[in-house]
Amino acid sequence: MNNTERLFKKLLEQLKNAAKFYYAFDLLEWDQLIKMPPGGAKGRAEIYAAVNTEGFKLLTSDKMGEILKKLKGNVENLNPEKQLLIKRINAIYQRLKVVPPDLMKAFNEAKSRACTIWTEAKKKSDFSIFQPALKDLVGFMHQFAELYGYEKNPYDGLLPSFEPGITTEDLKKIINPLLKELIPFVRSLIEQPNKPDEKILKGHFSERLQRKLSLEALKVIGYNFNKGRLDIAPHPCTAAVGPEDVRLATRFVLKDLAPALFASIHEGGHGLYEQGKDPLLRWVKLDTDYSLGLHESQSLMWENIVGRSLSFWKFFYPKLQNIFPRFRNIALKDFYRAINTVKPSLIRIDTDEVTYNLHVILRFEIEEALIKGEIKVKDLPELWNKKMKEYLGVVPKNDAEGVLQDIHWSLGCFGYFPTYMLGNLYAAQLFATAKREIPELEEEIAKGNLSVFLEWLRMKVHRFGLIYEGPELIREVTGESPTLKFWLDYIKEKYSKIYDIS
Amino acid sequence: MNNTERLFKKLLEQLKNAAKFYYAFDLLEWDQLIKMPPGGAKGRAEIYAAVNTEGFKLLTSDKMGEILKKLKGNVENLNPEKQLLIKRINAIYQRLKVVPPDLMKAFNEAKSRACTIWTEAKKKSDFSIFQPALKDLVGFMHQFAELYGYEKNPYDGLLPSFEPGITTEDLKKIINPLLKELIPFVRSLIEQPNKPDEKILKGHFSERLQRKLSLEALKVIGYNFNKGRLDIAPHPCTAAVGPEDVRLATRFVLKDLAPALFASIHEGGHGLYEQGKDPLLRWVKLDTDYSLGLHESQSLMWENIVGRSLSFWKFFYPKLQNIFPRFRNIALKDFYRAINTVKPSLIRIDTDEVTYNLHVILRFEIEEALIKGEIKVKDLPELWNKKMKEYLGVVPKNDAEGVLQDIHWSLGCFGYFPTYMLGNLYAAQLFATAKREIPELEEEIAKGNLSVFLEWLRMKVHRFGLIYEGPELIREVTGESPTLKFWLDYIKEKYSKIYDIS
Repeated sequence: MNNTERLFKKLLEQLKNAAKFYYAFDLLEWDQLIKMPPGGAKGRAEIYAAVNTEGFKLLTSDKMGEILKKLKGNVENLNPEKQLLIKRINAIYQRLKVVPPDLMKAFNEAKSRACTIWTEAKKKSDFSIFQPALKDLVGFMHQFAELYGYEKNPYDGLLPSFEPGITTEDLKKIINPLLKELIPFVRSLIEQPNKPDEKILKGHFSERLQRKLSLEALKVIGYNFNKGRLDIAPHPCTAAVGPEDVRLATRFVLKDLAPALFASIHEGGHGLYEQGKDPLLRWVKLDTDYSLGLHESQSLMWENIVGRSLSFWKFFYPKLQNIFPRFRNIALKDFYRAINTVKPSLIRIDTDEVTYNLHVILRFEIEEALIKGEIKVKDLPELWNKKMKEYLGVVPKNDAEGVLQDIHWSLGCFGYFPTYMLGNLYAAQLFATAKREIPELEEEIAKGNLSVFLEWLRMKVHRFGLIYEGPELIREVTGESPTLKFWLDYIKEKYSKIYDIS
Repeated sequence: MNNTERLFKKLLEQLKNAAKFYYAFDLLEWDQLIKMPPGGAKGRAEIYAAVNTEGFKLLTSDKMGEILKKLKGNVENLNPEKQLLIKRINAIYQRLKVVPPDLMKAFNEAKSRACTIWTEAKKKSDFSIFQPALKDLVGFMHQFAELYGYEKNPYDGLLPSFEPGITTEDLKKIINPLLKELIPFVRSLIEQPNKPDEKILKGHFSERLQRKLSLEALKVIGYNFNKGRLDIAPHPCTAAVGPEDVRLATRFVLKDLAPALFASIHEGGHGLYEQGKDPLLRWVKLDTDYSLGLHESQSLMWENIVGRSLSFWKFFYPKLQNIFPRFRNIALKDFYRAINTVKPSLIRIDTDEVTYNLHVILRFEIEEALIKGEIKVKDLPELWNKKMKEYLGVVPKNDAEGVLQDIHWSLGCFGYFPTYMLGNLYAAQLFATAKREIPELEEEIAKGNLSVFLEWLRMKVHRFGLIYEGPELIREVTGESPTLKFWLDYIKEKYSKIYDIS
């Protein structure tokens, strides 16, 4: 073993030391969401903070700095993946290093308080309860943006926490044509007289049978239950709580068949991504997953592009009919149309894949203006409602179904929302590439042979984990920078058919 | 605030810093036992070790040493509880301090390996698989005994990890008369022709209804579900995973009504003890709970002295009959006799309260001889079987139902078993005192008013947590050192009646 290899091994060891605490932290978080008794919340925030801080300390230690410094410009012997990993870790290290530990600790505590306050404010549907805590967090964001640095826009300082390699300008280049194309397209769909009949998805569906359906779908897409499980949570989520332990959670709505099933498949997509990482990366676990856009592309790909496709339902519909015999009287086509209903909604997580990006853009624009200091926290409810009217044509009746609906800001996540939009774009771009490379892809899916696609994703996307920045990987795999084109084509083609627009 | 108070506050802060990691550790352990998917085990041991080591480091830090040193001989201003806490923490600190961190780390890793190996060995019922790992752990025990120090017997070096204030000699003073009195008494019970009819407890009892019964019993004894929960585990257990979060787990045997119910009440007793700690002690959380004898006295008290008493069933039997109507045809007296059947068993955890201590004594004698080096690990199966024959008159057919039955040794716990016997003794001695101080105690229990007893325990036992050593608290509350007398009287009186021995 030469010197560089020895250093690389040391780097992995140091990453592993940090990963142990980050995995423990994610278990604490998973438990809080899913298993913790209500009274147990007291004191939890302090346990979190201690465990998280320990991971952070190890990741930003002088030892880590030394290893990275010694590796710099000295990596030619290593294979390309290892070189890329070093580059990414170095970028992450430099970024984390600029935040003084005390500030990070104060931020973690503020987040934890804010999260509790947000829960109460949402329950009471009163933004003014949350306002001071949110102002506090925005204050942290201003500090962070300055510490991280940026060229033109302070929001650029925050984006790389969730999606390195993307700037506000990049986003605007996507958003402007997207708004221009999508708003009239959505209007044309809504005005169509021949709408899908969503009512066929309503009724009473027992939790037991819905669970059975979700488990079946997750098995079909290839999620490994030996290294995972499916629980119930107030918000669906995926948690990697160990190097071989990636858990999903969904939520059951008894009067509607769709939410649990598609949330399960969505989280299953996240789960497959985590389960498909190269073994080299098992003990590379950070506070957040870098390139959330890529992560989200995997969940949205399985939920929407596969999970709401006609090909998928050609083989999966009989399985659903076995579990819920009432669907034996409903034609596949009607079912397929029903699960692809487009309807502007007040709530982001209840929305369809067509209007989803409009919700994201609204949040992005508010965040950017907040971080640039162009608007004030107190103006948020009004601004929110105004944009909802403009983009989606609907207006929230209260804060709970408006500005308070999402947990993200209370978790201190600013710059996170755009990754959902990027996820949609990446997914469409990747799927188009997969179809080009595997011409029989949709036929295989229609036969239930999903492993063809999973293997392609494993090889092209999953195994690399955080090694690539999102736009980098997209270029690598598809030969093109992230672009609106594929998603827009996908949406227009699919929904023109469903809504009979010629 | 004077200087001593400031120092005491610092002590609590330092303890809290360590407690955060120990709580996180206990959550990892709880999760592994109860929720973790099988494949998730890989890597878990390393996450444990990291989190545990962090708690250990904080607990044994120089900062801790300094605070304790400064407090020494300088505590008169503090109230007695605070003084006692300092004394106990100091003793624990001194004890932990003698183990070099590297040795502790190696031990934690060895335990984790041994536990996996034990599971396999037990499954295959082959002691030889476990033998090398056990030998390894006994080797650690020899090192620990020397490091901890002892006067006469190396086993005395280990006992204080679980029951400070007790020596091997103390135990032998209890064990010798116990064997002498108990073995012939058990024989006389077994020879009685008019035995309880255990068959009435067998049949098919759904998990759902058994769970309902367990929840009802736990509510009745006062366990707080807002700060806890009841799960299913392969071994029943209690886990304090946060300052306000104490969880129970039981196991369901579908063909037998008794195991789940009494395991639930048993763990409920542990849970009540943890939930009853003085708020001062919420953030005092160590690797093990000091005085496991006291801890066990609380579980055994509720399981046996209360939970298997005629008074308890006078009010609780109708509740059981509501859940399982088949018992409407069975007289209370027959039910009461059935749940108090005495039958020498091969398996410690399946045994009755009368013969239980014989199982404990067997393990104690083997452990003591192992640690003294009088016997070798390879001799264990034979010795085990010989003693089973001698004390209980039954002989295991294989290692799984013999020497491999308990998990304790694989967890590196030597000196633990005697705390079960002490728990029985303490429970009887405490209950006798409670009856003396609350003459109407048994009538109140028979009316379902268990809070009278819980309040007494809260005040006399629970709130002190680890402040007292077991024997210290027993003397404080009962006016007498731990003694065999009360337990033997309790057993002889109760079972002479049940078995009609005059």
